Amino acid sequence: MPSPLIVDTSASPHVRLRPVPINAVKLDDRVWSLFGRMNRFVSLPYQYRQCETTGRLENFRRAAGSGEGEYQGWFFNDSDVYKWLEAACWTLAGGENASVAKMVETVIELIAAAQQPDGYLNTFFMFERAEERWSNLTMFHELYCAGHLIQAAVAHHRATGREDLLAMARRFADLICETFGPEEQGKRPGTDGHPEIEMALVELYRLTGERRYLDQAQYFIDARGHGLLGSAVYCQDETPFRERQKLAGHAVRALYLAAGAADVYAETGEAALRESLERQWQHMTTRIMYVNGGLGARHEGEAFGDDYELPNDTAYAETCAAIASVMWNWRMLLLDGDARYADLMEHTLFNGVLPGLSLDGQHYFYVNPLSNDGQHRRQPWFECACCPPNLARVLAQMPGYVYSVSGDGVWVHLYAQNEARLTLANGQVVGLKQRTNYPWDGRIELTVEEAGEFSLFLRIPGWCETGAALAINGQPFAGALTPGSYVEVRRAWRADDRLRLTLPMTPRAVESHPRVTNNAGRIALMYGPILYCLEANDNLDVHLDGVVLRGDLYESSFFINMLGAVVALHGTATPLPPESDWDDRLYRTRSLQAAPENIHITAIPYFAWGNREPGAMRVWLRV
Amino acid sequence: MPSPLIVDTSASPHVRLRPVPINAVKLDDRVWSLFGRMNRFVSLPYQYRQCETTGRLENFRRAAGSGEGEYQGWFFNDSDVYKWLEAACWTLAGGENASVAKMVETVIELIAAAQQPDGYLNTFFMFERAEERWSNLTMFHELYCAGHLIQAAVAHHRATGREDLLAMARRFADLICETFGPEEQGKRPGTDGHPEIEMALVELYRLTGERRYLDQAQYFIDARGHGLLGSAVYCQDETPFRERQKLAGHAVRALYLAAGAADVYAETGEAALRESLERQWQHMTTRIMYVNGGLGARHEGEAFGDDYELPNDTAYAETCAAIASVMWNWRMLLLDGDARYADLMEHTLFNGVLPGLSLDGQHYFYVNPLSNDGQHRRQPWFECACCPPNLARVLAQMPGYVYSVSGDGVWVHLYAQNEARLTLANGQVVGLKQRTNYPWDGRIELTVEEAGEFSLFLRIPGWCETGAALAINGQPFAGALTPGSYVEVRRAWRADDRLRLTLPMTPRAVESHPRVTNNAGRIALMYGPILYCLEANDNLDVHLDGVVLRGDLYESSFFINMLGAVVALHGTATPLPPESDWDDRLYRTRSLQAAPENIHITAIPYFAWGNREPGAMRVWLRV
Repeated sequence: MPSPLIVDTSASPHVRLRPVPINAVKLDDRVWSLFGRMNRFVSLPYQYRQCETTGRLENFRRAAGSGEGEYQGWFFNDSDVYKWLEAACWTLAGGENASVAKMVETVIELIAAAQQPDGYLNTFFMFERAEERWSNLTMFHELYCAGHLIQAAVAHHRATGREDLLAMARRFADLICETFGPEEQGKRPGTDGHPEIEMALVELYRLTGERRYLDQAQYFIDARGHGLLGSAVYCQDETPFRERQKLAGHAVRALYLAAGAADVYAETGEAALRESLERQWQHMTTRIMYVNGGLGARHEGEAFGDDYELPNDTAYAETCAAIASVMWNWRMLLLDGDARYADLMEHTLFNGVLPGLSLDGQHYFYVNPLSNDGQHRRQPWFECACCPPNLARVLAQMPGYVYSVSGDGVWVHLYAQNEARLTLANGQVVGLKQRTNYPWDGRIELTVEEAGEFSLFLRIPGWCETGAALAINGQPFAGALTPGSYVEVRRAWRADDRLRLTLPMTPRAVESHPRVTNNAGRIALMYGPILYCLEANDNLDVHLDGVVLRGDLYESSFFINMLGAVVALHGTATPLPPESDWDDRLYRTRSLQAAPENIHITAIPYFAWGNREPGAMRVWLRV
Repeated sequence: MPSPLIVDTSASPHVRLRPVPINAVKLDDRVWSLFGRMNRFVSLPYQYRQCETTGRLENFRRAAGSGEGEYQGWFFNDSDVYKWLEAACWTLAGGENASVAKMVETVIELIAAAQQPDGYLNTFFMFERAEERWSNLTMFHELYCAGHLIQAAVAHHRATGREDLLAMARRFADLICETFGPEEQGKRPGTDGHPEIEMALVELYRLTGERRYLDQAQYFIDARGHGLLGSAVYCQDETPFRERQKLAGHAVRALYLAAGAADVYAETGEAALRESLERQWQHMTTRIMYVNGGLGARHEGEAFGDDYELPNDTAYAETCAAIASVMWNWRMLLLDGDARYADLMEHTLFNGVLPGLSLDGQHYFYVNPLSNDGQHRRQPWFECACCPPNLARVLAQMPGYVYSVSGDGVWVHLYAQNEARLTLANGQVVGLKQRTNYPWDGRIELTVEEAGEFSLFLRIPGWCETGAALAINGQPFAGALTPGSYVEVRRAWRADDRLRLTLPMTPRAVESHPRVTNNAGRIALMYGPILYCLEANDNLDVHLDGVVLRGDLYESSFFINMLGAVVALHGTATPLPPESDWDDRLYRTRSLQAAPENIHITAIPYFAWGNREPGAMRVWLRV
């Protein structure tokens, strides 16, 4: 029986939490199950066709054949195919789809045919460019692509139990282990310009037990900061990883590297790695993170900005960077079960990752501004198409992120209606039912299906600053419910014991640190874990920058096509005078005592923006 | 007796106003005379030394000699020398300075020695690059440099009556006229990648009466928009000038071009030129102009932004672009005496041009943000050093901008204490005394020194929306004083007749059009023609983005070293909580009903910012 574990810390010595398989959790919630279904039936077949029509699959056929015709697209295009393949495998682990299964078979055949006798595989460095193999690790993405192949192979094995793709990936991984390493081992010093293979190699180690894969991941981390990549901040080579004080350079690279280092730490327990990760996480969350969890303020170099440099309209905030943050936070969470990682992971999933995908499943944001006048629209595809299959991958993985287990019980990270059958470390099987309309409602009912003694660790989200309540079989829970932590409820459970967790949901105004100058005097609206925005569609005849929020907010239901009824937020605001008053002037004198006038405003979840007629959108509102 | 006229429309058929010589007006005001004196005694000698130490003068020596050693600096470095020379000549026209006069002689000798037998002169395209002469008009700046040489020569002749430099400039101008033109005239089609020579050639026509210089200026304008410069928006080649709907591309280029076209119109009266200029002026003032008159929102391409794209912190707003706007507005003003041009000229001089110069006369802003955290400081010089000598030039010209004359009288454009002796078109000499502390006080007393009948046209500034008053010998003037227009006072004046103009000065809040999104909910403070800003130096312990202005404003005197007592503005504001409250968080929940707390704030003239300890500065304040 396959056990589709996303990050398999089951045997990792330096973690508190162990994963649960994707197929152990059946989501039936108001967000993730809807997006998951769309991913399975719409996005994955759609992305496969895009890989075909853009030549990404043809590149493999070319590599397997005579090399006639031109290689198509960017030199890292193989990675999109691998990431799609990984997404498809996780999806198939969660439920059948014959059509996607057939596509998976086709892609694996293409990979098998294109792989070189020595295990090397990169369809760009073939034929006319065969001599250039490994010639420029800083610039090209061979190790990055290899990492995605390995991750796809691990997913394929864990989802299907099959060995064929895994054998291909291992041949390539072995070649990499033989090739790169310290000079004193007779190897070639080098590391990856774009991190990613670190996570893959640790996972391959976890799957195979072959220590050399873990050592190789650690080598790639250790090799940074010594000039092998030109000491470039862009690709995290300006300082050794253990000495890093902050995240810097290309956001996705920096975050994938951190995630890989967390994987290495889970196996080695090296304190210096953990301390560096902690400093980088602190830097991320207190200096450079958008309110939606987005990361990377700058288009130039797809990079983090300076501390507190978080422009809203020109934000880069690549969808892949938000996904990378989720991947890193998940690994950190597994280390010690600290709820701050789960809080940020949930927050980023809803508000940083989901906005990347349209509600039709076939359009994508690469860049995620928090303020726009309607010109920024999701696109069907990109020449650099990392984000679409990355979104497919994270959506396919979602059932695996809801729970973890530890020696003493079950950890409930995410609230989302589901049924789960989980196996604790001691072999005890726990059946759980979660009934809730979360995130649109804060009432969550958990039913324990069979008798047994174990702990339930329930996350009390950090956003729920007051008023969280827990009852067990109708009796109030006696312990403290501290926001931003897990509350442990240990009992000898009887079948059908019920926990009722109430997370009071009221609209909240969030302000940002005064040094984020463009948000000064503004607030962002939240409701539970969801970030909101104003869209012109719901606020006709109002210039969104003119809205000055006043007084209280209230919520009501709001219909969004695929999602059905979600919560919208409403409030009262003072508008600025309409443009028609301006007589085409650019500046005018105004009184400092303007008479207030009230208008009604409506905010919708930020992740759903840009799905209607093009129009202005704002996250940060004047107050 | 030399007649140092800056833009000599004395004989132009299509203008209403005629210039007055620089030496006809003796400024003794609170701003311009102070900056003018500093310019004469500090900045001009300082800039000469910079031209020497940076190799700009050495390039001429090299060109005159064997060509040994390397050419130094940018390929347009000659233009800095010419612009310095022009500035020095205008300064000498206004008053003696033996040291600067000696420097002028030295530079003219260098120019004479470096000029080629055929009249060509550009010290970059000598020796090893002699073959590349005129090879790339789009990219290189030979015609731009030639224009500055011609302007310097005209200034030199008008200031001193001498012919030597003028003869050199004419030889070069003749070569240019012989070289560039329509193919059917056997010439080489081409136009200047960086406009500037158009103004120069028209002025040379005005001085010499040689029509071919005017024709050549017109040819360079006509040749644009036909692909000679690659149809680049950057250098105004994307559309024929007469079809332009807006300013576009590199800001200084676009504005110099408009100024040159206004010069051509003054001589030709061609309606299509005037209409294009009017459209561009409307576009400038209603879409793309910073509140300080600054122009060019973008660092990239030193270009205008999109309509309403006026970021404050990343503003480019090159000092030279503000100067170019002044030059253009002055020429437009001469055409028909419309006060809107004089209004904008005054506004831009105070708020867009002056900030470029430090109060020590030896540091310069090239870029002029309207919001900064203290890292942006004036520099001693630049590799591309267009702004410093351009500032010196405009400061030296200032006495020539205060008045114009027309057939029927004297036009008072600027209020600034001075004594003037002006000659009307009919030969009548008018002596005027202006007594005022403007711009720090709105009371202006004008004394007519000798009897005579003529009109005085007094500008009622557009910013003075209500309350302007005029009394003649103590009796209220009966006519209307319309803001943004000239009021004509025609009389048979007796000696010592006195006019008292009162322009009520109170602190004003200016708001910007709602589409300037980053200014939404903010105001800028003005007092008379002066734009204000908050600096951290005067507002300790306050984060300037946290200041929310409340209620009334009041003024008081404030001491600024060189300037003595100027007016500062004060007000009451609500601060945001200090950073120490934030516990290093990036976001937090806040109440929408924050209790207001009052703090006192002080604003100083924007042009004086950045002259003390580095610290934050903001023009736009929350309200």
